[in-house]
Amino acid sequence: MRTLKLTLAYDGTTYAGWQRQSCAPTIQGCLELAFGEIEGRTVAVVGAGRTDAGVHALGQVASVRLAHPIDPATLTRALNAKLPTDIRVLHVEEAPIDFHARYGARRKVYRYCLATGPVASPFHRLYAWHLLQRLRLREMRQAAAVLCGQHDFAAFHTAGGDVETGSTVRTIFDVAVTPSRSSDRLEVSSTEYVTVDVVGDGFLRHMVRIIVGTLVEVGLGRRAVLAVADALASRRRDHAGPTAPPHGLKLLCVEY
Amino acid sequence: MRTLKLTLAYDGTTYAGWQRQSCAPTIQGCLELAFGEIEGRTVAVVGAGRTDAGVHALGQVASVRLAHPIDPATLTRALNAKLPTDIRVLHVEEAPIDFHARYGARRKVYRYCLATGPVASPFHRLYAWHLLQRLRLREMRQAAAVLCGQHDFAAFHTAGGDVETGSTVRTIFDVAVTPSRSSDRLEVSSTEYVTVDVVGDGFLRHMVRIIVGTLVEVGLGRRAVLAVADALASRRRDHAGPTAPPHGLKLLCVEY
Repeated sequence: MRTLKLTLAYDGTTYAGWQRQSCAPTIQGCLELAFGEIEGRTVAVVGAGRTDAGVHALGQVASVRLAHPIDPATLTRALNAKLPTDIRVLHVEEAPIDFHARYGARRKVYRYCLATGPVASPFHRLYAWHLLQRLRLREMRQAAAVLCGQHDFAAFHTAGGDVETGSTVRTIFDVAVTPSRSSDRLEVSSTEYVTVDVVGDGFLRHMVRIIVGTLVEVGLGRRAVLAVADALASRRRDHAGPTAPPHGLKLLCVEY
Repeated sequence: MRTLKLTLAYDGTTYAGWQRQSCAPTIQGCLELAFGEIEGRTVAVVGAGRTDAGVHALGQVASVRLAHPIDPATLTRALNAKLPTDIRVLHVEEAPIDFHARYGARRKVYRYCLATGPVASPFHRLYAWHLLQRLRLREMRQAAAVLCGQHDFAAFHTAGGDVETGSTVRTIFDVAVTPSRSSDRLEVSSTEYVTVDVVGDGFLRHMVRIIVGTLVEVGLGRRAVLAVADALASRRRDHAGPTAPPHGLKLLCVEY
């Protein structure tokens, strides 16, 4: 047996998320089906982050144990030939035998895309959360700074998720709120883009989306920066902001 | 009666093109349905360019004659509330009573997006033509220069299209072949983008797509630059390159 590390990109629009389900298409399900055909038996694929339904990925990492001796480049082509075009294997490499995409992950980077303006671009409707009002970036950045560091993020997660350690303490290394300098002239004029990049050692269920939902409240002037600190300290979900919709979110990369 | 000028963006992926059809969803059909509800009678919407099935637009222009006194800003919101989210009205303005989106158009700009690299990004699969091999841009630019100016583009169109004047002479003002300086880090690494912007006074059926298909042959080293001049002079469709797929094409803007 050998262990392989896969880097994946997917458009999550039509999927019920990463995690295998019996009655709905999922990213893990599609990958396991493709691997099963190659390996000739059921294969389990482990993902670094179990993205929600509608969430995208540009650098999801997965690990898989395989008996088949197929070389990485051929495997990449074989998987992409079997997978639907909205899921792509970008890279396959040999990994140490005990490599585990989920347990081994040290840092993950998520990007959330916000679009503001009177009309939502048809080309970003599936990849950005559209808001009519402009956002106050300075206040959003101040609120973002409050969340950086090691904290108990109980207020910023949905209970019932997978909390294997039982702990809701996580470390956020950075939350960057950046107006998107889109050089792409293919934009609906008067639309402004803002990205929120969140870097952490791990994320609770819906954590990035609740962080973004809370920052957007601040950006719209509906919540004071201090109220974000209060929400964090409260450890109560109902003290934080709403869960931002999934389609604005992308798992950018995972570091080991 | 008044005449209005509309600026539209749409993702053409799921449409059978601009032009109204009885049994397939089209952009014109959706707009006329929305206008019909507002006006209370059948309304004809005229588009500047009748984009093919799967072709997109960021700045399509349409004209419509309306009796209803609704103001442009309210009309924009009302139309967007009725239209599917992959069609957006960006702007509505009052126009001279005889304004005609098609006959009045003096220049149209189309952009074709090419992506090259080993794996096609899931996020560009509907908006760029993916090629495995890199393109030779210098040769593509030389071939593009051959097409600029007033020529008989008979070799670069599909017969059976709408040639109301009977003439296949058109003027191309510019064909710009540009490596896309994507500041967007949200790209599949090792993918390179090339855009082909074509500016002309009017376009025959499939003309932009055949121009791009021919330039791609040159970029791949399968056709010499001189052979593009020969194809143009031949006025024979079978002497030009293949018709590039529709999904890489966007109507960027129309000038009057």
